[in-house]
Amino acid sequence: MTTRIALIQHFVFDDKNDNLERVIGKVRQVVKESKPRIVALPECFNTPYDTKYFAGYSEPVPDGPTCGRLSALAKELNIYLVAGSIPEKDGNKVYNCSTIWSPAGKLIGKHRKIHLYDTAIEGDIVFTESNGFAPGSDFTIVDIDGHKVGIGICNDMRFDEFCRVYRNEGCEMLIWPFALVASQGQSHFETLLRCRALDLQLYVCGISAARDENSPCVQWGHSMVVNPWGKIVKEAGIGDEVVVTDIDWKVVQDCRRQVHLFEQRRTDLYACERKKH
Amino acid sequence: MTTRIALIQHFVFDDKNDNLERVIGKVRQVVKESKPRIVALPECFNTPYDTKYFAGYSEPVPDGPTCGRLSALAKELNIYLVAGSIPEKDGNKVYNCSTIWSPAGKLIGKHRKIHLYDTAIEGDIVFTESNGFAPGSDFTIVDIDGHKVGIGICNDMRFDEFCRVYRNEGCEMLIWPFALVASQGQSHFETLLRCRALDLQLYVCGISAARDENSPCVQWGHSMVVNPWGKIVKEAGIGDEVVVTDIDWKVVQDCRRQVHLFEQRRTDLYACERKKH
Repeated sequence: MTTRIALIQHFVFDDKNDNLERVIGKVRQVVKESKPRIVALPECFNTPYDTKYFAGYSEPVPDGPTCGRLSALAKELNIYLVAGSIPEKDGNKVYNCSTIWSPAGKLIGKHRKIHLYDTAIEGDIVFTESNGFAPGSDFTIVDIDGHKVGIGICNDMRFDEFCRVYRNEGCEMLIWPFALVASQGQSHFETLLRCRALDLQLYVCGISAARDENSPCVQWGHSMVVNPWGKIVKEAGIGDEVVVTDIDWKVVQDCRRQVHLFEQRRTDLYACERKKH
Repeated sequence: MTTRIALIQHFVFDDKNDNLERVIGKVRQVVKESKPRIVALPECFNTPYDTKYFAGYSEPVPDGPTCGRLSALAKELNIYLVAGSIPEKDGNKVYNCSTIWSPAGKLIGKHRKIHLYDTAIEGDIVFTESNGFAPGSDFTIVDIDGHKVGIGICNDMRFDEFCRVYRNEGCEMLIWPFALVASQGQSHFETLLRCRALDLQLYVCGISAARDENSPCVQWGHSMVVNPWGKIVKEAGIGDEVVVTDIDWKVVQDCRRQVHLFEQRRTDLYACERKKH
C-alpha cells in the first residue's frame, strides 16, 4: 500500500547539458541508495528560469534528445519519472512542459503549464513568463501503479478551481514541480500546498530547484511532501538535497473515510466543473 | 479607505442569558474604547457547542428576544454587527444561524450554516452536528459601507468551491464565525484562512470563542484577521480577548492589481459556478 517517492532538489545553472547530466546522476544515485518507485524533478530543471533562455534551450517532445535520455533512464531504473519541466519546441511556440515516463520508458503524460507567471509586485518582483512560453490548455492525470496522480507546474497550484478538478476526477496525489521565486515562497508556498492537501484530501509533492543566490531567479527550495491531513511528511532545506519518503495510499482512504468533505459538498448550490471541448 | 473591525473572542458557558449579557457588555466596551465600525462574534456565542443544547436554546429569527437585543445594540452603537451564530427555531427545524445587523438596526443578512460538522476522526473527535441542526441552503453576501462581505460559519470554510463563489461575486472580505475544536485547530485553522485569503485576494476574519477546557467542545481560539496577501494582520491567543484592527480596502485593490489571479483563471477549461434555482 506504499509507494516510495524521491524529490530531486538540484542546482540549475546555465549549461543545459550539464544540468541534464547532473540530474541523471542524482536520479541514478537515489535509486541505487533508496529504491524509490517515483522520482520527481523541479520545474525548468535544465534551464535557468528566465525568459531569455527558454527558446534557445527548447526541444521537441518527445522526439528531442532530452526526452530520449529521460525515457531511457526511466526504463533503465524501472521507475516512474516525473521529469519536472523543460522548454518544449512545437512549431513556432515554446511551452513549459512536464513529461512523465513509465518504468517501461513510455511517455504516459505531458503537461504544458497552463497558468503562466505574469506578475508585477511593487518593490518585489516583475516577471512576465508569457514573454517566453505559450500556455497549455489541458489537465494532466497519469496512472501510477493504479493510482491517479494530477500534474501541474508551479503557478498552476494557485488556482483552486484547477486543483479541484483533479480531486473531482479521482486523484490521490498531486505532483507539482516549482520554480518559485524565494521572496514569494515565505508568504504562500507551504500554505498553498498544505491547504490543497486539506481541501482535496490527497498527497501533494512540491519540487523546487536548490537556491542559487546568483541565479536570475533565486529559488525558494523547501521541496516537500504533504499528506492528506495537511501535515508535512518531509521537507528539504534550500540546498542540494533529495527528499525520500513513502506515500501511504491508505492514509488517503483513511482521511476520506473519516472526514467526508467530498460527499458533503453541496453540488446543488455550486460546482467546479471541467469544461468539455 | 479603512474600516475598523473588532472580533470578540469571549467565553461561552451554559447560561444562555448570561452569555448574551456578557457579549453585549463587551461590544459596548470595545465600541467605547476603539470605535470599530464592524463588530463580529463567534459561532454559537450564546450556547455551548453541543447538540444537546441547540433546540432548547433556539429562538425565531428575527422575531426572538435575542435578535431584538442585537438589533437594538447595533442601532444604539451605530455599528455593523455580525452576530456570530445562534440556534434559530423555524417550525420543526433548528438552524445554526448568523444574523448581520446594520447601524440602523436592520437585519441585512442571515446565514444558515450550510456544511454541518459531521465527522468521526479515530482517536480524536466524533461529532454529528446534523443531530442538532438542519443545514441551510443559501450563500450570504452583505453590503458593508459599499463593500461586499461574504458570510460563512466554521465548517463552511473547508469547502473551496463555496468560498470561490464569494470571490466570483465580488466579495472583498469574508467574515467567518468559528467553533473549532481545539484538537483540529492546529492542523488547519491558520492554513485554511490564509489560503482562502491568498486564493481569493481578500480579507478573511475568523472569530472563535475563548478556550474553556471544561467545555463539551474545547475551542481553538486564535481569532484572526488575514489580509489579501495571506499575512496575519492580528491574532488573538486562546483566552478572553478582543482583536481590533483596521481593514484597508486599498490592500484588496493593490493585491488584485499586482497579481492577476482572477483574470488569469482559465474559465475555458474550468469554472466554479453558483447553481441557480
